Amino acid sequence: MKHVITISREFGSGGREIGFRLASKLGIPFYDKDIISIAAEDNNMEESAFIEFDEVVEEIPEYVSGTPFSQIYQIPMSDQVFLMQSKVILQLAEKGPCVIVGRCADRILDDSFNLFLYADMKKRVERMLALEKGTDAAKMEERIREADRKRKDYYQYYTGSMWGRAQNYHLCLDSGKVGLDGCMKAIDVYLEFYR
Amino acid sequence: MKHVITISREFGSGGREIGFRLASKLGIPFYDKDIISIAAEDNNMEESAFIEFDEVVEEIPEYVSGTPFSQIYQIPMSDQVFLMQSKVILQLAEKGPCVIVGRCADRILDDSFNLFLYADMKKRVERMLALEKGTDAAKMEERIREADRKRKDYYQYYTGSMWGRAQNYHLCLDSGKVGLDGCMKAIDVYLEFYR
Repeated sequence: MKHVITISREFGSGGREIGFRLASKLGIPFYDKDIISIAAEDNNMEESAFIEFDEVVEEIPEYVSGTPFSQIYQIPMSDQVFLMQSKVILQLAEKGPCVIVGRCADRILDDSFNLFLYADMKKRVERMLALEKGTDAAKMEERIREADRKRKDYYQYYTGSMWGRAQNYHLCLDSGKVGLDGCMKAIDVYLEFYR
Repeated sequence: MKHVITISREFGSGGREIGFRLASKLGIPFYDKDIISIAAEDNNMEESAFIEFDEVVEEIPEYVSGTPFSQIYQIPMSDQVFLMQSKVILQLAEKGPCVIVGRCADRILDDSFNLFLYADMKKRVERMLALEKGTDAAKMEERIREADRKRKDYYQYYTGSMWGRAQNYHLCLDSGKVGLDGCMKAIDVYLEFYR
């Protein structure tokens, strides 16, 4: 595999595990959103955020520029974090093939192989309850919906494109119908032909 | 295969051909949108359309009902055609496993296996130009965009859901990156695990 593999996924669909298995199988590094967040923080966050701020300072809206507000106009922290994480993703991709989960990596990178994993709610609740004992199904469903809503909003806000729109990915798989083993096998075969 | 297979596809992605190949391989009937349209027309269209009209006559909007307009209020012909085609799709599915291309069959049927095929514009233009000599690339791209726009609007109007939303299908494949052979192999493997 000469490409970076990006994984987008509905909460509870097993997308992260698919990513981990793919990385192990292919012998390439695995980065999930936590690793990317930590890397962005370690990566001299404040200095870099300032540089980014410098770069976009021209984009102060006209109604702010030239007024006293221009002194205090700043990029929201969430946007600064996104910019830093994007930079980390580009740096990781430059080092060579790897698996990156989440963080809109499919839109940040130009030539990545993009996967989207999902499953119906029932299957995802079952899977999560098996992993985390002691929660009831209704609470778990609520948590899944909330996590998905956040991912959807995040993707939409930072990419302007729709999370889960098939054409944003090369292969989209319902893991509920075939399990993670079935997904792995289908991805394997697709990758054999991927040029 | 004990399920009906539905194929949704971007124009030029080869989805119809994938459907045809799947039907041949599995030895099950293949129905594309033309076959369904003809079946709907043959199927005593006028009488059945009238029955459908009867069924939904209560849905005359309040501002029409009780006014002289209620006499002339009718379901638009396009909606009557959709209802007839849906009925044909349900009838075909009842007979047993088959492949159905287009016509929102993925939303009309309850327990179908749903595929979505797509590819980037460059690949689709290339594919269509190889099939239909004598058209130039710019005209072909225009035709592809127009066909996709119609499919998108049709799906959105009749299902209320988004055409190409990955979660509406079990497996979505970019055929441009792996060719139709690659798609067939990946679908094969996915189906082996499909329960």
